[in-house]
Amino acid sequence: MTEVFVQTPGGAYAIRVGSGLLATLGAEVKRVLPTVTKLLVLTDETVGALYGDAALASLRAAGLASALVAVPAGESSKSIAQLGQLWAACAEAGLDRSSCIIALGGGVVGDLAGFVAATYMRGIPFVQVPTTLLAGVDSSVGGKTGIDLPQGKNLVGAFHQPVLVLMDVALLRTLPPRELSAGLAEVVKHGIIRDPALLDWLEREAAAVLACQPERLAELLAWNCRIKAAVVGQDERESGLRAILNFGHTIGHALEAIVGGQAEAGAGDSARPGASAGAKGPVGAWVHGECVAVGTVGALVLSQAVGLLQETALRPRIEALLERLHLPTRFPAHVTAEAVLPFIARDKKATKGRPTWVLAQRAGEVLLSADVSDAEVLAALAYLKAQ
Amino acid sequence: MTEVFVQTPGGAYAIRVGSGLLATLGAEVKRVLPTVTKLLVLTDETVGALYGDAALASLRAAGLASALVAVPAGESSKSIAQLGQLWAACAEAGLDRSSCIIALGGGVVGDLAGFVAATYMRGIPFVQVPTTLLAGVDSSVGGKTGIDLPQGKNLVGAFHQPVLVLMDVALLRTLPPRELSAGLAEVVKHGIIRDPALLDWLEREAAAVLACQPERLAELLAWNCRIKAAVVGQDERESGLRAILNFGHTIGHALEAIVGGQAEAGAGDSARPGASAGAKGPVGAWVHGECVAVGTVGALVLSQAVGLLQETALRPRIEALLERLHLPTRFPAHVTAEAVLPFIARDKKATKGRPTWVLAQRAGEVLLSADVSDAEVLAALAYLKAQ
Repeated sequence: MTEVFVQTPGGAYAIRVGSGLLATLGAEVKRVLPTVTKLLVLTDETVGALYGDAALASLRAAGLASALVAVPAGESSKSIAQLGQLWAACAEAGLDRSSCIIALGGGVVGDLAGFVAATYMRGIPFVQVPTTLLAGVDSSVGGKTGIDLPQGKNLVGAFHQPVLVLMDVALLRTLPPRELSAGLAEVVKHGIIRDPALLDWLEREAAAVLACQPERLAELLAWNCRIKAAVVGQDERESGLRAILNFGHTIGHALEAIVGGQAEAGAGDSARPGASAGAKGPVGAWVHGECVAVGTVGALVLSQAVGLLQETALRPRIEALLERLHLPTRFPAHVTAEAVLPFIARDKKATKGRPTWVLAQRAGEVLLSADVSDAEVLAALAYLKAQ
Repeated sequence: MTEVFVQTPGGAYAIRVGSGLLATLGAEVKRVLPTVTKLLVLTDETVGALYGDAALASLRAAGLASALVAVPAGESSKSIAQLGQLWAACAEAGLDRSSCIIALGGGVVGDLAGFVAATYMRGIPFVQVPTTLLAGVDSSVGGKTGIDLPQGKNLVGAFHQPVLVLMDVALLRTLPPRELSAGLAEVVKHGIIRDPALLDWLEREAAAVLACQPERLAELLAWNCRIKAAVVGQDERESGLRAILNFGHTIGHALEAIVGGQAEAGAGDSARPGASAGAKGPVGAWVHGECVAVGTVGALVLSQAVGLLQETALRPRIEALLERLHLPTRFPAHVTAEAVLPFIARDKKATKGRPTWVLAQRAGEVLLSADVSDAEVLAALAYLKAQ
C-alpha cells in the first residue's frame, strides 16, 4: 500500500493506493472521520452491481450506518434532474453535517457525488473510491466536482476536496480495455506536462499496464497522483498553474462536443452505442480519454507551429506511444477542422472568446499562452484530419 | 457613506452603506473587478420593476454589458427548478469566469443568486445589493447562499463571499412596514448576542427607524454589519462562533416550518396571502423575522430556565422592545408547544437529532449548549402560547 498526501487550502487528505483496499473502506472512513454518523454510498448501476455490496459490508462491519443509491451509468447522470434526486435522497436518508458521502465509481459518479457533498447543507465530507483508471489518475484527485448543463459539460460545480481517496487496483480488473486505454491518455498528458521519466516508464511497461498487472497499476496510480497532487496543491482553484492540466483538453473538449456521445463511465460499462471493438478509429461515440489523446497530438503540433517546441522528435514519439496504448491520434473520418474550430472558442477556460492554450516547450515543460492565431489553430486541426 | 470591511478565508470585501448608492453600482463594480466582462442582474419581479432599470442604467453608464433576469418574488423561487433556469440563463447570456452576477433584492434573491454565482463554472464573483432591512442587516453579509428542498429550507447551498455589498438605504423606502419590522428582529438578536449598546440605541431610536429616517437606517445597517462581519470573520464556515447568530432561530425555524407560508420577500412585496395588516398576531402566514422574534423570547425563557441567565429584567425588556417594533412575542393562536417540538429535532444545526442551543448569559453574551432537556424546551414553548 502506498500513500500520497494532498495539501490544498480547501483540505489535506491521503490517497491510499493498493490491491484489496475496498475491504478497508469502513475502517479507513472511521479513522479519518471518528465522529461520522450516517453514510450514503453513491454509485452507478453497473459499479453498484459489481462492488456495492462489498462497500456496504466494509462500512457496516466498522459499525457505520450506511445506505446506497445507484444512478444510471454514463454522463447523462450528471444532470440537474439527477442532482435534485440525490439531494432529496440525502435529506430522506437523514444525512446531517456529521454524515459522509462515498463516491464509488468512475469520473461521472465522482463529479456528481462530489458536487452533492459540496452543496448538501453547504458542504459535508466525502470519500472518493475510483473504479476506473481515468478517475484514479485524474478526476478523483483535486476536488473538482460538477454536473453538465444542456449548454455544456461541467458548467456547474464546486471545488470540494475529498477527505480520503481509496484506490483499489483490484477494482480495475473489470474495466473494459477501451476504458483502461482512455485513462492512459491522462497519464501521457502528465508525462508531457511535468515528468518525462513517466513517458520512459510507460514506453517500457505498456504491455504490463494493458494487461492490468496489479503492481504496475499501483505504481502508475501513485506516480500520477503525486504529479496531480503537486499541481493542485500549488493552485487549488485554477488561477494559474493548475491550468497546465488542461494540456490536450482544449482540442479534446471541442472534439468531445462533436463525437463524445458518452464520456468515461463506471467500471464494467462496456455497452456503448456504436462503439467499435478497436479504440483507434471507432465509428460511434468517443470517450473523453480518446478525445484527449487526439487533442494531445494537436497541442504538440500547435506548440511546434508557434515555434515553442524545438524538439521535433517529441510529437512522433507521443503518437507512437498513444498508438501502443490503443488510443487514436487523429479525428474520426467525418470530423473536419472547420467543424471543430467553433467549439474551441466556447471552451470553459476561454476569456472573451479566446482560449488560453497549454503548449509544450519540451517533454516535462509546458506554459500557458493566449497568443495563438485562428490560422495556427486551424492548421493544427488540419493535421489531425483522419488519414 | 460608511464602509465596513469583512475579512474571511473565502474573501475580503467592503460593505458600502449610504443613501443613493444604487447609482454608483456600475462604477463600484468596475473598481472592484477592473477586468469584468459581462454582468447579469438577478432580481425578483417586484424589485426588478422598482429598481431594475436604475441598476442596469448605472452598469451600462460604466460601460459594462449587462442583462437582467427576474424570478417570481417569494421563497418559492429558492427551488431546484428556478436554480436550473438561472444556470441556463447564465450559459445563454455567455457568462464566463470573468463575469459577475448582481443580486438585487431581499434574502431570497441574495441566497439564490449567490448560490448560482457559487456554482456556475465552479464559482464566479457576485455583488449583493440588498433591498430589504433583513437582507441588509443579515443575509447579504457572510457568504451563506442556498436554496430550499421539499424536505427543508436551505438544505442545499454553499459558502460564497460577495466581492462587494452595496446598501442603498433609499431603497428601503418602498419596503412595507411589516418587512421593516421583520428585519429589526435580527437587529435585536445582534444586540443580545454581542452588543447591549445596540439595544439601548434601538429603544431610543425605534420611532425614527420605523419612520425610515435615512441617517438612522444607515447608522443601524453599518452597526449591524460590523457585528456580523466580526462574527463571520472569525468563523466563516460555522464551525464555532458563527453559530451564535442562530440565537432565537432554533424555535424560530421550527415555528416558521408551521406558519411560515412565505418568508421574507423582496422590497415592495406587500401581497402576502392571509397576512393581516398588523404584525402582531397575523392570522395567516408569518415571515422569518416574526418567527425569530418569538424564538428570541423563547431562547431567553430557556436561558432563565436552565439557570444561565440571572438578569431577570432582560426578557421583559426584550419583549417590550419587540412590541414597540411591531413584532410578535408569542405563537399565533392555533400553534401549541406540542406542535412545535418535533420541528426542533429536525433543525439543520442538529447533530444526532439534538439541536445545539444558543443561550444568553446576559445582554451581549451568549454561549452554545446541547445540554437542554426536552422537558425544559417544552416548558419554554408553553410560555410562548398565545395569551
